[in-house]
Formats: sequence, structure tokens, C-alpha cells
Amino acid sequence: MSPQQRVVIVGSGFGGLFAAKALRRAPVAVTLLDRTNHHLFQPLLYQVATGILSTGEIAPPTREVLRGQRNVTVVQAEVVALDAAQRSLDVRLPDGTRRAVPYDHLIVACGMSSSYFGSPHFADFTLGMKSIDDALALRAAILGAFEMAEWEDDPARREAWLTFAIVGAGPTGVELAGQIGELSRHSLRGEFRNADPARARVLLFDAGPRILPTFPERLSERAAAALGRLGVEIHVDTAVADIDERSITVRGVDGAQRRIAAMTRIWAAGVTAAPLAGIVAAATGAPTDRAGRLAVADDCSLPGHPEIFVVGDTMALAGLPGLAEVAMQSGRHASRVIAARVAGRSQPRPFRYRDLGTMAAVSRTSAVATFGRINISGRIAWLAWLVVHLAFLTGFKNRFTTVVHWAIAFIGTARQERATIAALSPRPVTAEPDEGA
Amino acid sequence: MSPQQRVVIVGSGFGGLFAAKALRRAPVAVTLLDRTNHHLFQPLLYQVATGILSTGEIAPPTREVLRGQRNVTVVQAEVVALDAAQRSLDVRLPDGTRRAVPYDHLIVACGMSSSYFGSPHFADFTLGMKSIDDALALRAAILGAFEMAEWEDDPARREAWLTFAIVGAGPTGVELAGQIGELSRHSLRGEFRNADPARARVLLFDAGPRILPTFPERLSERAAAALGRLGVEIHVDTAVADIDERSITVRGVDGAQRRIAAMTRIWAAGVTAAPLAGIVAAATGAPTDRAGRLAVADDCSLPGHPEIFVVGDTMALAGLPGLAEVAMQSGRHASRVIAARVAGRSQPRPFRYRDLGTMAAVSRTSAVATFGRINISGRIAWLAWLVVHLAFLTGFKNRFTTVVHWAIAFIGTARQERATIAALSPRPVTAEPDEGA
Repeated sequence: MSPQQRVVIVGSGFGGLFAAKALRRAPVAVTLLDRTNHHLFQPLLYQVATGILSTGEIAPPTREVLRGQRNVTVVQAEVVALDAAQRSLDVRLPDGTRRAVPYDHLIVACGMSSSYFGSPHFADFTLGMKSIDDALALRAAILGAFEMAEWEDDPARREAWLTFAIVGAGPTGVELAGQIGELSRHSLRGEFRNADPARARVLLFDAGPRILPTFPERLSERAAAALGRLGVEIHVDTAVADIDERSITVRGVDGAQRRIAAMTRIWAAGVTAAPLAGIVAAATGAPTDRAGRLAVADDCSLPGHPEIFVVGDTMALAGLPGLAEVAMQSGRHASRVIAARVAGRSQPRPFRYRDLGTMAAVSRTSAVATFGRINISGRIAWLAWLVVHLAFLTGFKNRFTTVVHWAIAFIGTARQERATIAALSPRPVTAEPDEGA
Repeated sequence: MSPQQRVVIVGSGFGGLFAAKALRRAPVAVTLLDRTNHHLFQPLLYQVATGILSTGEIAPPTREVLRGQRNVTVVQAEVVALDAAQRSLDVRLPDGTRRAVPYDHLIVACGMSSSYFGSPHFADFTLGMKSIDDALALRAAILGAFEMAEWEDDPARREAWLTFAIVGAGPTGVELAGQIGELSRHSLRGEFRNADPARARVLLFDAGPRILPTFPERLSERAAAALGRLGVEIHVDTAVADIDERSITVRGVDGAQRRIAAMTRIWAAGVTAAPLAGIVAAATGAPTDRAGRLAVADDCSLPGHPEIFVVGDTMALAGLPGLAEVAMQSGRHASRVIAARVAGRSQPRPFRYRDLGTMAAVSRTSAVATFGRINISGRIAWLAWLVVHLAFLTGFKNRFTTVVHWAIAFIGTARQERATIAALSPRPVTAEPDEGA
């Protein structure tokens, strides 16, 4: 009997996790690599950032999720290089040492990083929304801004502390804006003596003509109305001209620039493929699109490298969007192709994305959802959002505490997870004159 | 009418929080200062470190806890200096700026830091257990050690990764040892393919002759037996001679030294008063004991400075131990003295600690508890522990998710809060040869 073929999956997000699960019955040895120790339920990251959920609720340990699947070995490591000819990855372990990880089949499911449209200093002056660390840093920044507002006597400075600028009005930006609105209008009520959290300004900027551009236009309007009721100020057709550590400068379609003092600036705009995509492109000569995504054939493999698959957000295929559902389905598809090859069966049919719909929760009681030609909004969409997300989380056993946390946050207005940690709290702003007594 | 007198409380732990609450009906303006945004239920910190509880469950926002008490202003800041003659604190805000905070009455409730017995480099090579940051760093170190063990092929190195050395066998060290034992023996079972987590060695060192020295001797024995069943190796009469980034060297009563390779080293031993105690001592000339605690009169005030009170762990009074209950009672007492003075009433009777008993949870089903002359251990003590802690947490509204997390961890063996964050994960160990392919 020949030794088992080795399938190495890089990334424990939706694509990588579903790829691993789809190999459950295949006679292969699977290794799942990720820099972190957890799967990340990224669509709920904004709820960790705004104090609703704990980290454990959206980030179950990958090895616990896959415990029962005996053909998977989960390991924590970061890919540093790829030798496509030798079929071997060079990885860095958490202690800094390096190892070679050989493969027969490779599935790249590394997701996306933030892109700053050629202005790398934007990264220094904004907070991102990609990882658990990002969410906790954002939690510390948001709650810390209210803390500073409580101290501040100067009205202009207090307003700057109470101004939250969000760049990018896709689902992440919209959901975050809504929850900062809820936090300031409801959750924090009565907790401050000098500042009034309800006076916080939440500004949502997008260069495009409407929020939630991937949703039908009517739902964008509904979502905008719900955000408006929370006091969120929406500025579409508005590009970012500059960002520094105290303000954001935006430019309207008329070219006029406006500088707004905002101590908290959040980047929910452009994405670019994670560094591994560049490593794969360099090692294989595979072409990438403008966002660094790797173009794949209709079986999700790289042309010229049928043993390398790219799935999820990192995959450029037929203009498919970066959605959890696309990642799950493409991850599963790549594994089916591998299983068929190993078994000597004929290749499955080409990958076709089955659109199950998308949704975004805008406020405590309102969401928008689109399922094929059915568009819903408001309370009914919010209930649909709740049911779908609860059903999904069931797989991770985190449902009970999540239900409690949602009841506390959405039936009530409290938030149980507001502890901030020093290591991820904002550093002091530089060049501020010392005002000590 | 004269303006309200200003009471400034430094520290939002048990002492400071209960001092603030005890001023509920007093006609004073209270300011509660703390570096963090939360109260910390420190006795359960070990459960955050070992993945049972989320940070929000043991660290409710101080301003939410005190929301309804209109005479309290909660502010986040760190005390830098004290001018006792001017009755003014110099504080540093989160953004780095400084402010003067004047007071008429000051309550110092700043707690303790770790003490390394004159070997400051121990701090670099061990993890502490004082803050939320500490607990999350410890969680990342413990779970990260198992991750490294999964990679490691060399048996000696793997054993070093699977060796957890805890210095100090008070309640913190004992409870942590028990939970690392539970984690390795039960929670992680079946999740690893190369390493066997159940082979982890948990070593508990103490220079004294028995664990839990503040408990009756019989309970120490019971606790030691329960730890033994979890595979914890107890080494009493054993002092720490040295610690480096890969090992701990200990010395028995016979003077013989032994070096043990251990990649995870935890400091649960000596404590010294937090830096603020030194600031207060310098500013007032107040004497401190060997651990830096400030000696107070029997009304908890500093001799010569009746307007400055010291409560909780930082207070040196009649040999009272550093327990949450002592902190609560002394905090409350200081506030009663202040309220009496402000009202022109006669001073309350001297502070007397009412011992309500102490307890420590040793394992998933076993605890020890002592209430006056009643000593209990095993399952019944564990149930008492559960009831007391649930009753206590009720005040913070975090009871529901905590019950769920405890059911998951103690009826089952799973742990819901295992997500580790990169910012608090161990840095690579230095001087390790690169073993890359």
C-alpha cells in the first residue's frame, strides 16, 4: 500500500475549515496550518469590538472543532515561503523556529488583509477589522474615547473624542457604525457625569454612491434610514484624502476637501490578498488580479499547478465576492476534487457558487437581507439574521452564552464584554502639550 | 451651603469599589480612579487564564457597576504623584496628558504587585497573575506550549514544552495548578495527534512546608491529595534558586539544587505593594512594612494624615491577610469614617475584620473551605465554593453566562474561552538555532 497522500491547508477561516471537513472520509493525511489557534467567525467580529460578544464565542479553537476528525493534524504556524517544484512549505513556528512542510496537495485559504489604496500611512492612523487582536484594539479605542471625553473640558477636543469615523460602507462598516450608534445612544446611558455619550458622532464614509453596494438599492436605502435613526451620519460619494492621528480629511465629488477632527478612525474599506497569495504567485508564476487574488481554473486549482488550490476570498474566479459562503463552498469543492483524484474517480463538475443570500444587521432591531429575488428589511430581516447566525454557531457549541449575550444586548441594551486590555489600548497621542498641574 | 467635600478613591478593586458603594448616601463628590476600565474579580483570574471564563465575566466595567450612584464619577487614569500638603494627586490620562485631582479625603486601594525576592530577572522569565492582561498572556502561553509540543519531535524538548512550573502554593498557585491539570488531563483530550497533553507535568513549588499555608493543616493535605489525583507534582520546602527562559532551578532544604527544563514558568509567589504605596509613603513619610504596605491606624487612616486612608491589600494593620473580604470590609470602613466626619457625627468604632472564611477550588469537583472552626473539603466544599461565587457575581449581572461556562467546564470538560491573541502571545525564545528546511 502506498503511503497516504498529504493535503496541507493554509488558513483556518471558513475556506480552510470547510476544506478540512470535506476530507473527512478521504484516505489522506490532512494538515491544517494557521498563525492563530482559532477559527474566526469574522462576520461577528464587530460584536466583539463593541462589547457584545466574548472572543471565545466567535473564535473556537480549531483543534477542538476538528477533534473528532482523526485524519487532520492542526498546527499553529505561519507560512514564510513556498517551493512549488519540491512541493514544500517553509513555515515559522510560534517559537520562531522554522520547519519544512511537504505536501502532495495544497489548499491556500489565507483570506485578505486591509488595503490602503497606496497610502500606507493610513494603516498607522486607523484601526482595522481582520483579527481578534483588531477587534480588541478597536474595543479599547472606542471605549477609551468615551473615557477621554469624560475628562476633557475643552468642547472642541471633547467633540473630537466623541467622533468616530468609519471608512467603508460595506457590511463591516455598516454593522460597526450601527453598533457604535447603539452603544453611544443606549448602552452607555447614565454612566458618564461630564460627557454625554449620546452626543457621539458616528460618521460613515464611502467613495461609492450608496452604502451596502452589493445589496439591492432598496435595501441600501432601508439600511441608511435605520442608521440615520441611530444618529449615524452617512457620507457617500466621499473619498478619503488624508488621515492623521487626530483627524480625517475627505473629498466630495465636487472636489471640495473637508477636515474632520476624529480621535477614533476605523478602516473597513479596501482589501488586498494576504501575503501568502504573493508568495504563491511568486513561486508559481500564477497571475493575480488588482487586489492580489490568485486566478484559478474552474476546479479552484491554479493553472499549471493542478496540485495547488486557492479558495475563499483569495481566489479570483468569475467575480465571486469575498463572502463566508463563497469560502465554504469553494473550500469544500477543492477537497472534493482532491478526494476524487486520490480515489481515481473522475473529476467533479466545475465549481459553481450557489448563492444562499446575504444579510447585514444594521441596528438592535433592524437588518437587511436578500435571498435571490426576495428582499427583506427591518424586524423580520433581523429575526432571519438571528436564526441564521444561531443555526450557524450551533456547530461550534458556543450557542448558549451567545444567546444570553444577545438577549442582554438586544432585548436589553447592556454589553457584557467591555473589559479592555492594556496591551491593545491606544498609545498616547504624540505632540500633545503636557497639561499637568 | 459649603461646597461638597471631595473624596478621591484610587483603585477599582474590591477595596475601592466597596468604599465607593459605602458612600452612596453621603453628601460628598466621589471620584474613583483606576488605570483600567474595569473592576477585577481577581479570585477567578485563573479561570480566564485556563480558558473557562471570558474577560467580561470577571471584569465588569466600573462605570456600569456604579452607574446608578449619582455622586460617583469614574475616571480612567494612573496616579503619578501625590502632593499631601496641597491635597492633590497628579494623574496621567490614557492619552498621556496629566491632570491635577484635588481631594479632601483620599482612599488608597491600589492592591499589590508581584515581588521577586530581590531577583528582578525572574520577572522577565515568568508570567504573573495580577491583571486581565496577565491572564490572557498566561492563556496564550499555556495553550501555546501544547501547540509547540505538537510540533516537537525531540523528546526532551517536547517534555520541556509540556512542563509547567508554578512558583507559590497559595490559593492562586494551587487553583492554577489544578486547572492546568484538568486542562491537560481532560479538556484537551483527543485534540492532538503527535503530543499527548495528558503527559504534561504540572510542578508546584513553595518554599514553605505545605501548600495553602493560611488554611488549616488538614485542608492543605486534602488539597494536596486532590492535586495529586490530577497529576500535579507538589514540591514544598523548595525555594527558587534561579529562572531563565527555558528552565527553573530549585533548591531543597538540604541545599541541593536541581534544574528543570520548563518552557512555561508562572509566578504566584511574593507580593509587594503597588507603586502608589511608595508614592504615598514618600509624600507623607508614612512607614511601610517589608512588603511595602502602609501602616494605618485602627480607623484605616495614615497616622499624621487623617484625610488619607489605606485599605485592602496595601494596608498594614494587625497582620490582616490580603483577601478580597478584608479589602471590602476595610474599604467600607474608611468610607464610614469619612461619612461620619462629613456629617459631624462621632467616629465609628475601630475597624475590626469579620472573618467570613476562605476557600479554594482545587479541581473540577474538589475544594477546601474554612469557616471559623468548620473545615470542609471535597465535593461539599466545591458546592459551597460554587454557591458563594455565584451569589457574589450576581451583583455584576454576569451570572448567566458564567453558569453556562461553569457547566461546560465542570459538568463537561470543555472550555469555551480558548482564543489567544497575538499581542499577548509568547515572543519567540532567543538563541534557538534555526531549524528550517
